[in-house]
Amino acid sequence: MKYQVAIIGGGPAGYTAAEAAGKAGLSVVLFEKQNLGGVCLNEGCIPTKTLLYSAKTYDGARHAAKYAVNVPEVTFDLPKIIARKQKVVRKLVLGVKGKLTAHNVAIVSGEATIIDKNHVQCGEEVYECDNLLLCTGSETFIPPIPGVDAVPYWTHRDALDNKELPASLAIIGGGVIGMEFASFFNSLGVQVTVIEMLDEILGGMDKELSALLRAEYAKRGIKFMLGTKVVSLAGASSEDGSPQVQVNYENSDGPGSVVAEKLLMSVGRRPVMKGFGLENLGLERTERGNVFVNAQMQTSVPGVYACGDLTGYSLLAHTAVREAEVAIHSIIGKKDAMSYRAIPGVVYTNPEIAGVGETEESLQKKGIAYRAVKLPMAYSGRFVAENEGVNGVCKLLLAEDDTVLGAHVLGNPASEIITLAGMAIELKLTAGEWKKIVFPHPTVGEIFKEAL
Amino acid sequence: MKYQVAIIGGGPAGYTAAEAAGKAGLSVVLFEKQNLGGVCLNEGCIPTKTLLYSAKTYDGARHAAKYAVNVPEVTFDLPKIIARKQKVVRKLVLGVKGKLTAHNVAIVSGEATIIDKNHVQCGEEVYECDNLLLCTGSETFIPPIPGVDAVPYWTHRDALDNKELPASLAIIGGGVIGMEFASFFNSLGVQVTVIEMLDEILGGMDKELSALLRAEYAKRGIKFMLGTKVVSLAGASSEDGSPQVQVNYENSDGPGSVVAEKLLMSVGRRPVMKGFGLENLGLERTERGNVFVNAQMQTSVPGVYACGDLTGYSLLAHTAVREAEVAIHSIIGKKDAMSYRAIPGVVYTNPEIAGVGETEESLQKKGIAYRAVKLPMAYSGRFVAENEGVNGVCKLLLAEDDTVLGAHVLGNPASEIITLAGMAIELKLTAGEWKKIVFPHPTVGEIFKEAL
Repeated sequence: MKYQVAIIGGGPAGYTAAEAAGKAGLSVVLFEKQNLGGVCLNEGCIPTKTLLYSAKTYDGARHAAKYAVNVPEVTFDLPKIIARKQKVVRKLVLGVKGKLTAHNVAIVSGEATIIDKNHVQCGEEVYECDNLLLCTGSETFIPPIPGVDAVPYWTHRDALDNKELPASLAIIGGGVIGMEFASFFNSLGVQVTVIEMLDEILGGMDKELSALLRAEYAKRGIKFMLGTKVVSLAGASSEDGSPQVQVNYENSDGPGSVVAEKLLMSVGRRPVMKGFGLENLGLERTERGNVFVNAQMQTSVPGVYACGDLTGYSLLAHTAVREAEVAIHSIIGKKDAMSYRAIPGVVYTNPEIAGVGETEESLQKKGIAYRAVKLPMAYSGRFVAENEGVNGVCKLLLAEDDTVLGAHVLGNPASEIITLAGMAIELKLTAGEWKKIVFPHPTVGEIFKEAL
Repeated sequence: MKYQVAIIGGGPAGYTAAEAAGKAGLSVVLFEKQNLGGVCLNEGCIPTKTLLYSAKTYDGARHAAKYAVNVPEVTFDLPKIIARKQKVVRKLVLGVKGKLTAHNVAIVSGEATIIDKNHVQCGEEVYECDNLLLCTGSETFIPPIPGVDAVPYWTHRDALDNKELPASLAIIGGGVIGMEFASFFNSLGVQVTVIEMLDEILGGMDKELSALLRAEYAKRGIKFMLGTKVVSLAGASSEDGSPQVQVNYENSDGPGSVVAEKLLMSVGRRPVMKGFGLENLGLERTERGNVFVNAQMQTSVPGVYACGDLTGYSLLAHTAVREAEVAIHSIIGKKDAMSYRAIPGVVYTNPEIAGVGETEESLQKKGIAYRAVKLPMAYSGRFVAENEGVNGVCKLLLAEDDTVLGAHVLGNPASEIITLAGMAIELKLTAGEWKKIVFPHPTVGEIFKEAL
């Protein structure tokens, strides 16, 4: 069988590329070894947000009195929360499948192996293709900590399916994944300890806002250990004899240990480069060992494209989606180029934190002069109306010529309004140009207009 | 005393102009006869959103089981809801005052009267000014229905301060104000009847989405009477002798009447043109009788500007804010012009409905060819995760050359994401250009990218 486009991997990069190619009238085959939708839909973005929304509903009911609503008693049902998550995932996976079949994409379930740039094998079958898209995504990185093989631990996947609440949870890695689970389990009453090697959680996000979020969660009972290196893991047991995990660490105070009922490993993720014949393509690599791509997502081998986590750029679903669009545009000869100028980052804690464009840290590193404008979120009337006793901050970073370079928000719904800043940054608006937009009143998004 | 800028009215137009002028180093006096912040802050946008958030919290708790959170009992405390609203308003009024005094704006409390374009009197004092800004806003319009003087009725102001829930409420006028109160009182268990003269609620919004919202609220128990003209009002009494109001109407089924414990008048608002010496300026009027202004918000008399509801354009706070910025830019000689291309309209029901730019109705009237793209909100994974059993629609209107002309959303948080479409429309982006923006995943705002 011959196709114009063969795609390996059915996550956000793969399914976006497949749909776009199908829409453009190309014949497409897509190989997926597990579930359509990839990590994002099946065990990442979507399931976490579903769980976090249950936690937010629970928190909302517990604190309803702030808004003069009395809720004397509130409980949650974890197995039902997990069951609802499965249902949401199933619905969305079916949606992806529906869109692909509507655009005549041939979906092949199984492990694909690249023979050469024009041939992919899956099972007994060999598929011929004019263009090959590599969208294999990323996988959880488990660091080689001494003892790691001897103790039980969760990855995000286990944490998503866990139906029995532990009394305590140690989380190694305070990045986005670690913090979203920390937030979830903290809301449900679990004693959470976050162990982070760097000197702040959420590396890559605005440092000042990350520290504010950390302070808020510390108040709610999460224990944070920053600048702390895990040196070994060991089994332990509680007073009643039930099994525990002991995390041995070192930090500036010397060695120590945290004992918890469960352990979540969320140190990071890395591109999937093995198991599908990548080596048979002889692709050029970057200094960091990732697959090299140009602004059209073309690798060093003509007709071979790479999109999504595999390129190692940002490991975010929305980056993958845009990269996939660019790759298909390249194949059909439509002028386009990938821009990493305005890739938003969002952490779905409660409150949310989101940022796009440069951070103060990245500008300082690059030696770019900038002006930071910082406003409490209380400058938005709607924020005040809907966030009783909650603080937040909006920070805009402006170039000397007033071009918007970066935007960072702590406060709900940061995830939704950060896209406004993304548009301003990607379109290279100045503060004056952006301010001319009529922002509906009252909205939280108006905070940007206030800050401009 | 002489000022470079004198401003009559301290609502969104007035306080925005005053702050902007003060920031620009101009000497400014602002006259306000009641409360800084105007209708918007004291008895409009902000207080309604505060009440509606309590109602949303109440609804959220009542339906928490959808997210596997159990809330066996939930009640609300209306006097406390009202008290919180007062607190929020107070805080925000203080914020406005603080910003004005920080920019050296002289705030004068009292009724100002224009003597001529360079002189304003307030009390015994006469103030001299180089530029005069008219920002007097609008007031509730009470239609001359026979019997209106003989029955008690609420305006929005009474509804906002009411501490005892009526059993039933008749609302004359199903526009934004009417629908927001209908939503609030429906959530709290009041039997609400909305009587609207036109054939759909929310005139000016997308008609199809308005009908969907109406159907949703009809399911929740609100009774809608469309195409219904109120012909007279009369007193009545219930079985137990307590006073009621009887609304007599006529529609295609003939005459009839609605009896309710309370009556809310929300037929509309009209510019405040009297009581401050407007007649002493001899300003040119538009055909509809409003004060004529050009794109710099200048009236026909040099040095006199009008901003906000007084101009009769949209009677929205955010229009007023932008007009005020333009007026001050005009005074300080900074190139700017008012654009009404992308003024968002938002209704804070639950779910919210929001629109910006053209509607199908306005395009058809203008004879402009367009293409409508309509997607269920369920195309957004986050919407599915956070809106169990709730439907919504996103509609984009595109010109033949693919320029974005209009956007309409039914579903939370329409109010916050509609600004994305506002930016696209104001900046005259084509669908292809807008789609190149990286929308964070998963967000509800992604629905636009899906539709593009």
